Amino acid sequence: MTEPVPGDLDGHTVELDRAHVFHSWSAQAALSPMVVAGGLGCRVWNHAGREWLDFSSQLVNVNIGHQHPRIVAAIQEQAALLTTISPPTANLARGEAARRIVDLAPDGFTKVFFTNGGADANENAIRMARQFTGRDKVVSTYRSYHGNTGAAVVATGDWRRVPNEYARGHVHVFGPYLYRSEFWATTPEEESERALRHLTRVVESEGPASVAAILLETVPGTAGVLMPPPGYLEGVRALADKHGIMLILDEVMAGFGRTGQWFAFDAYDVVPDLITFAKGVNSGYVPVGGVVISDPIAAHFDDIVFPGGLTYSGHPLAMASIVASIDAMADEGIVDNAARIGRDVLGPGLAELAEKHDLVGEARGAGVFWALELVSDPESREPVAPAVVGRAKALLLERGLLPFVADNRIHVVPPCVVTDDEAGTALAIYDDALTLLTKELS
Amino acid sequence: MTEPVPGDLDGHTVELDRAHVFHSWSAQAALSPMVVAGGLGCRVWNHAGREWLDFSSQLVNVNIGHQHPRIVAAIQEQAALLTTISPPTANLARGEAARRIVDLAPDGFTKVFFTNGGADANENAIRMARQFTGRDKVVSTYRSYHGNTGAAVVATGDWRRVPNEYARGHVHVFGPYLYRSEFWATTPEEESERALRHLTRVVESEGPASVAAILLETVPGTAGVLMPPPGYLEGVRALADKHGIMLILDEVMAGFGRTGQWFAFDAYDVVPDLITFAKGVNSGYVPVGGVVISDPIAAHFDDIVFPGGLTYSGHPLAMASIVASIDAMADEGIVDNAARIGRDVLGPGLAELAEKHDLVGEARGAGVFWALELVSDPESREPVAPAVVGRAKALLLERGLLPFVADNRIHVVPPCVVTDDEAGTALAIYDDALTLLTKELS
Ligand SMILES: Cc1ncc(COP(=O)(O)O)c(C=O)c1O
Ligand SMILES: Cc1ncc(COP(=O)(O)O)c(C=O)c1O
Repeated sequence: MTEPVPGDLDGHTVELDRAHVFHSWSAQAALSPMVVAGGLGCRVWNHAGREWLDFSSQLVNVNIGHQHPRIVAAIQEQAALLTTISPPTANLARGEAARRIVDLAPDGFTKVFFTNGGADANENAIRMARQFTGRDKVVSTYRSYHGNTGAAVVATGDWRRVPNEYARGHVHVFGPYLYRSEFWATTPEEESERALRHLTRVVESEGPASVAAILLETVPGTAGVLMPPPGYLEGVRALADKHGIMLILDEVMAGFGRTGQWFAFDAYDVVPDLITFAKGVNSGYVPVGGVVISDPIAAHFDDIVFPGGLTYSGHPLAMASIVASIDAMADEGIVDNAARIGRDVLGPGLAELAEKHDLVGEARGAGVFWALELVSDPESREPVAPAVVGRAKALLLERGLLPFVADNRIHVVPPCVVTDDEAGTALAIYDDALTLLTKELS
Repeated sequence: MTEPVPGDLDGHTVELDRAHVFHSWSAQAALSPMVVAGGLGCRVWNHAGREWLDFSSQLVNVNIGHQHPRIVAAIQEQAALLTTISPPTANLARGEAARRIVDLAPDGFTKVFFTNGGADANENAIRMARQFTGRDKVVSTYRSYHGNTGAAVVATGDWRRVPNEYARGHVHVFGPYLYRSEFWATTPEEESERALRHLTRVVESEGPASVAAILLETVPGTAGVLMPPPGYLEGVRALADKHGIMLILDEVMAGFGRTGQWFAFDAYDVVPDLITFAKGVNSGYVPVGGVVISDPIAAHFDDIVFPGGLTYSGHPLAMASIVASIDAMADEGIVDNAARIGRDVLGPGLAELAEKHDLVGEARGAGVFWALELVSDPESREPVAPAVVGRAKALLLERGLLPFVADNRIHVVPPCVVTDDEAGTALAIYDDALTLLTKELS
C-alpha cells in the first residue's frame, strides 16, 4: 500500500478501498466508489473539498442530516461513560431509548427489542409472530426488501436452533402499484380493492390457519416509493384480524420522519401487531434497529423463553444516539419540516417535472420520500434502459447532487432537515439533467 | 414512569428496563437485570458505585477491557468527523480497518466484508461459500452458536431473494469433546481421529458434491470452550480440500486475543477459506462484524454480483474503533498478555481448583478463555442441576465477581488486559465460592 500523497487523500482512500474492502450487492472489479470524507446537514464532501447536495440520505437513512451536533455530542458523551454493555444488564440509556420509541407508537405498545439493523429487526419480528401464533408461513410482497440475513440460526447447533428451523414458509404476493398494475386496475380505489382480493385469495389458498404473519413495508421504499392506495392497509388489517394473522409493518425506511410522519402508518387507519425500525430512528449514526412489540405478543413471552438475541441488543452508544435523535427531531420540528417540504416544495416541483419531461412517467411520494419513474415512452410506460439511469446519475453528480437511483427510477430522498432553498436548488438540477438527457436521447 | 429518585438511579434504571426493554433469549417476567452504569478495564460498576470484577467480558466480547481511552477517543474523533456513510462510497477509516484485519490474517486474504455483528458475518460467509461452490449444504456442529438470523432474505421479494432461497441444506455433526465424548474415546488423539471419521462419514453420506461449507467455531465457545484436539482442524481442512468444500472458521468469540492468539486458528496448522469475526475485533465498542475472504472467493465476485449487503456495512464509527483497538492491542502487547495470563496464572490456578474441588470435573482452555465443568459426581460426570449453577453465580456476584455461566459450566473469560493481581483475586473468589457451594450441597 502506498502512503497517502499529500493532497491526494481521496486517491489514497480509493486505493485502500479497492485493495481491501468488499462491497455489498456488487460485482467488485468495476466499482469506482466516490469518496466521502465529511458532511453537514444535506451536504457531503470529499477530502479535496468538493461538495454534493445529498439527495440520497445515503441509503435513505440519514433522516436528521449529516453530523447533527446534538447526536454527535450524545455519542461522544456516552462513549466517555460506557460504550458497550451486554443485553442481560439494565442500562439507563437503553431504558430511555425504549421509552421514547414507545411514546411515539400507538397505545398498546410498551416494549422494544433492539437489534443491529433492519434485517435482524425483521428476523426477530417474524420469529415473534411465528412463536406467538404457532404458525409458520409469512406472506410478503414481491416488491419489497426486508434485509440480507437468512441462515445463521439454522446453522447454529445448540438449543437456540431448534425453535428456529424455519426452512420453509415464505409466500409472496403482488402489492398495489397502480402505475404498473398487476390487476388491470385503472383507479387507486380499484387497485386497492383488487390487490386486497389477490392477497385474500392467496391467504385462503395457503390456508389461513398456517399463516403467522403478513409482512409489509408500510410504503415499499427501494421497490419504488409505492404509496398504499386508499383502504389497502385497512383491508390488510381486517384480513389479518379475521384469521388471527399478525400484521408486521416494516418501517425501516419509511419510519421516523421520511413520509412526514413519525411512523408512515400514522397517515392510515391501521395499527400493526409488530413494528420494525432502523435507519431513521437514529439516522444510522450508530448501527441499530428493533421491533416495537404490541402488548399481547410481549406478554406471550412473560413466562415462555423468547428464542432470539444478539450480542449488541440495546448497545449503549446506539441507545444514546436514539435518545438524542428523537429529542432533536421533536424539539426542532424536523418531522413537520419533512411534511411541509413534501407538500409545498417537492410535491408540486416534482409534479411539474413529470408534466414537463416525457422521460418522467410518474412522480409519487410524500414528505421527503419521492420517486420519479423514467420511461422511454409515456404511453407504454416502458422503463428506460439501465444505461439511461446511469447517465442520469452521472449528470446529477456533475451538477453537485448526490442522487439515489433504483431500477429505472430516481428516488428523491433528502434528509428531513432539507431547506426550501436546498429543495429548490435540487429541483433545478433535476430539471437541467432531465433536459440534457432528453436531448442526448433524441 | 416515575422520575429518578436522587440516589436511586439504579432503581429507576431497572424500572425503565422492566417497563420497556424486551430481552434476548429469556422469559421476560422473572428477569431482574443488574445495572451497569460504567466501567474501566476489568471492572464495572452501578450508579450507586458498587463494583464488580468483570470475568465475563460481558458476552465474551470486551477483550480490550472496558473504556479503553484510545478507543473512546477514536470514537469521539470519528463522531466529530463523520459518523455514518453508505457502503457504496469509499471511506478512509473503512480502508484502514480492512487493511489492519488483512494484515493479521494469513497470506492469501486481502479483502474484508463488514457486517453489524457475528450473526450476519456467518450469514454472509455461508452465502459466499454457496455462491462460490454452487452447492447448498452447510455442515456445522450441534455444539455451536453462530447467530440469530435466518429468515429476512427469504421474506425479501425482489431479486436479492432469488439467489438466497436456502430453505434447506443444514446438516449437523458432533465435534470433538473428550470430556463428554460421543465416540467412546479415551485419549485426545482417539477423540480427534474418531470425530474426523464421523465427520467424513456424514459428508460422504450427504454427498460431498452437495456440501458448500463446513462451518466451525475454531474453539466452540458458548458450547463450553472446547479446545480442538491434536490433528482435528488439520483433518477437517484435508477433508474439505479433498471435496472442494469451503472451510469457514467462526472466530467471533475465539478471535482477537481471547485464546492468546490474534486468530485462534493461528495455534494450529490450518488456514480456512473464510474467517468470520465480531466481538473482540473492537471489543464491541460499536456494533460490527465481518468476513475475511480468501483471494479465490473474493475474485469469484470480481465480475459476478455478490448477492448480500446491509445499510451499515463498513460503518465509519465502527471502523475507527477497529483501527484504534487493533493498534492498541498491538502496541500494548494485549494478546501476549492474554497468552501469558493463561499459561502462568489462570491455567495453573484453575487446574488447582479442579484438583481441589470434586464439584469441578474439568478445567480447560487457553489464554483468557476457560471453562470449569461443574459435576455432581466426578466419576459419572453428571452435570450439576441448573439451580446449583444459579447459586454459584449468586455467590460469585456477592463476592464482587461478575461471572459467565452456561449450562453446567462457569466460563472464566476476563478481558485480555486482566492483570496478575486481578486474576489472583478472581481465583480466590472462585475457590471461596466453590468451597461454600460444596458445603451447602453436602
Ligand atoms: C424496508 C427495509 N427493511 C429492511 C431493510 C434492511 O435494513 P438493514 O440494511 O439495516 O439490514 C431495509 C434496507 O434498505 C429496508 O429498506
Ligand atoms: C462463535 C459465535 N458466532 C456468532 C455469534 C453471534 O454474534 P452476534 O451476537 O454478534 O450476532 C456468537 C455470539 O455469541 C458467537 O459466540
